[in-house]
Amino acid sequence: MLDQYSSVLLERAVGELAKLPGIGRRTALRLVLHLLRQPVAEADALSSALTELRHGVRYCHVCHNISDTDTCEICANPRRDGSMVCVVETVRDVIALENTGIYRGLYHVLGGVISPMDGIGPADLEIDSLVERVRAGGVEEVIFALSSTMEGDTTNYYLYRKLSPFNVRLSVLSRGLSVGDELQYTDEATLGRSLINRTPFDGSSR
Amino acid sequence: MLDQYSSVLLERAVGELAKLPGIGRRTALRLVLHLLRQPVAEADALSSALTELRHGVRYCHVCHNISDTDTCEICANPRRDGSMVCVVETVRDVIALENTGIYRGLYHVLGGVISPMDGIGPADLEIDSLVERVRAGGVEEVIFALSSTMEGDTTNYYLYRKLSPFNVRLSVLSRGLSVGDELQYTDEATLGRSLINRTPFDGSSR
Repeated sequence: MLDQYSSVLLERAVGELAKLPGIGRRTALRLVLHLLRQPVAEADALSSALTELRHGVRYCHVCHNISDTDTCEICANPRRDGSMVCVVETVRDVIALENTGIYRGLYHVLGGVISPMDGIGPADLEIDSLVERVRAGGVEEVIFALSSTMEGDTTNYYLYRKLSPFNVRLSVLSRGLSVGDELQYTDEATLGRSLINRTPFDGSSR
Repeated sequence: MLDQYSSVLLERAVGELAKLPGIGRRTALRLVLHLLRQPVAEADALSSALTELRHGVRYCHVCHNISDTDTCEICANPRRDGSMVCVVETVRDVIALENTGIYRGLYHVLGGVISPMDGIGPADLEIDSLVERVRAGGVEEVIFALSSTMEGDTTNYYLYRKLSPFNVRLSVLSRGLSVGDELQYTDEATLGRSLINRTPFDGSSR
């Protein structure tokens, strides 16, 4: 049953917030009434941050991570090791790996994994640009850090076939992750250890 | 530990969302990345709804409910019974009572309850305007629908002393509510029944 509000503005704000994942109408109402108790500047800061993010967001032309500039801070940092490229699904995985504080190389954000069930094929992912990065030289190791799921494994294998012609080491995060877990929900200690213990990938461990 | 993001825009959006009650940084990041996957129009709809609410919101000059106009829809509705005024703490309580579908009278939103511990005295609440409404005539019954807490009881008693000089029936929601419960979390069946079974308030049931 939908709540009846005495204000169209209130109804709209609650309706828009309730479209967000995990936010129901009751939570949305609580958030909106909280905002109404805050100074106008606070509410404006929130909405302008959201607008500016959505309009201003860019993606690094090298690794496709979210960035404010053409080349992201990680790719542009001369102290990062450009000989290693860690392949991840999403921006959240970059954040999760950065939080381990262990990895000093670069990233490549695929944008997902190959998933025929969801209609996602290799052409929908940033795979060609990864092959180009490797072809261009300078990359000595590519680390596959995808989810430990069937789709992740399929994508690992696809990347392995694409990249094995090149003179580059391929490795995969050690299976400290439980099978079926998604990367972004893994705790940092496990994630860090699985990065250290990454194992060579020869296509047979699939 | 704060997450490290590669984008100031991302950081700002997450930071602003995480100021909302019950939203942590991890949830905020999930919401923001969800917004980034939506069309720009969707994200704009959210932020403009929040901006317009915060700037455009008004409060009914009669009952202090949220409204888009000077007089709210409930007060302006000629089919509502103007002889009954239900006194509540907040706008959420109006929504909760409207959802019972039982009440056909008007409201008066106090803005809280008397709470010396929180430094809230009678002067901080819309009590004078309630007394004025009753003094102006036309009101035959005032229903106290405040939280069933010590502060709510104190406020009931204060209102009783202020209103008993007038020729007006005073009643209080029946204690179908468990003592200590807050109104806005009560299920609609209980709330509806407690409204029907409201009992005369003579100041001695405190």
